[in-house]
Amino acid sequence: MTQNVYDDEGFFAGYSKLGRSVEGLAGAAEWPVLRALLPNLKGKRVLDLGCGFGWFCRYVREAGAAEVVGYDVSEKMLERARTTTTDATISYARKDLETLELQPASFDLVYSSLTFHYIEGLPRLFGQIRRALVPGGSFIFSVEHPIYTAPSDPKWVGDTWPLDRYLDEGPRSTDWLAKGVIKQHRTISTYLNLLIAAAYTLRHVEEWGPTPEQIAAHPEWASERQRPPFLLVSAQR
Amino acid sequence: MTQNVYDDEGFFAGYSKLGRSVEGLAGAAEWPVLRALLPNLKGKRVLDLGCGFGWFCRYVREAGAAEVVGYDVSEKMLERARTTTTDATISYARKDLETLELQPASFDLVYSSLTFHYIEGLPRLFGQIRRALVPGGSFIFSVEHPIYTAPSDPKWVGDTWPLDRYLDEGPRSTDWLAKGVIKQHRTISTYLNLLIAAAYTLRHVEEWGPTPEQIAAHPEWASERQRPPFLLVSAQR
Repeated sequence: MTQNVYDDEGFFAGYSKLGRSVEGLAGAAEWPVLRALLPNLKGKRVLDLGCGFGWFCRYVREAGAAEVVGYDVSEKMLERARTTTTDATISYARKDLETLELQPASFDLVYSSLTFHYIEGLPRLFGQIRRALVPGGSFIFSVEHPIYTAPSDPKWVGDTWPLDRYLDEGPRSTDWLAKGVIKQHRTISTYLNLLIAAAYTLRHVEEWGPTPEQIAAHPEWASERQRPPFLLVSAQR
Repeated sequence: MTQNVYDDEGFFAGYSKLGRSVEGLAGAAEWPVLRALLPNLKGKRVLDLGCGFGWFCRYVREAGAAEVVGYDVSEKMLERARTTTTDATISYARKDLETLELQPASFDLVYSSLTFHYIEGLPRLFGQIRRALVPGGSFIFSVEHPIYTAPSDPKWVGDTWPLDRYLDEGPRSTDWLAKGVIKQHRTISTYLNLLIAAAYTLRHVEEWGPTPEQIAAHPEWASERQRPPFLLVSAQR
């Protein structure tokens, strides 16, 4: 099973204070770009992998989705998601994405935000997701950008990001909210070739950075344009 | 017209001494990966954009291509290409890729090696290329990797590559064989989204670095695995 750092007390306490935890989608700087990639949600069946507190599940239901399922490996996150969700058409379940099995052609949209860089068995998971999509269905996800996950010492030096180990794929241990958080570093080409190999059609690739308007409102985000923190991908079955 | 640095005396003299100029394709470390992306060439019509000394044109002809056309902006390179080519089914012409016009459905393969990062009007050129391909035809190219072109000061600091300006697309002036060589920096997502927008299907994306065998033979190449120098893309009409 994937390291379940979100159920670590200290990590969970720290994570709960992040903008995206307190304010939900509005607190996630990359959300406007992800939202623009979404298909029309009216009447659709949606699966969110790594649903966390359930913000996205509630959003798509409000936007007209017929049925929404959220999976996460963290008990603590699911507990909070259930507490803050009253809509009976949204269901949550604890699932390990390393071993997830999905029913064929059961969703119109599979979504995942900042989760896959924790997963080792991504080829298997991408295959399961494609099987679970209806023909023409959408697969939209974000991960930490490979430039962000690659370095042996991922820290700014002045205004530059000292990149190394980009082509050296595999686990990286970082201290972020807790010690020894394990992420899987993959190159952009690996993410994309896994999708191509699983017979998806690529629709859009975005290396996210803040807009001038966002930087005006949050000057501390300016450095994110030196090296993108997130990779956003839209693919289609 | 694109800056034609290849006709600069000093640049041309320096470029002529590079491994890939002296040894041809065998002197280009990324060639085995590019070659593996090529379709069956038997009887095919092939266009090489930025053909240089004509090494690729001669290769595809020997591999069975029926007709090969090479375009380049450099008179000096075309002169050498013509001098070293005896095969009448290979033709060379001087063309500016910024204004190139191609006949519809006239090629089975369009290829370009390390040329497009000099081109400003890439959306227009990608459209022309797609039009020039037969349905199912292949478009295979390499460019300098965006991680390589982005920095304001593209130099190693110890074993790290100090990345900045990644999301700041546009011209970069570097001193490489000559002073003030202008390259166009684009992100990976821009290259890929231009292809998607021009209705290509993406087949493969490769962020090239040397293999362990290549590093054993050329230990000085090891640093290229810290940050890839080339981006290789295979797309299909």
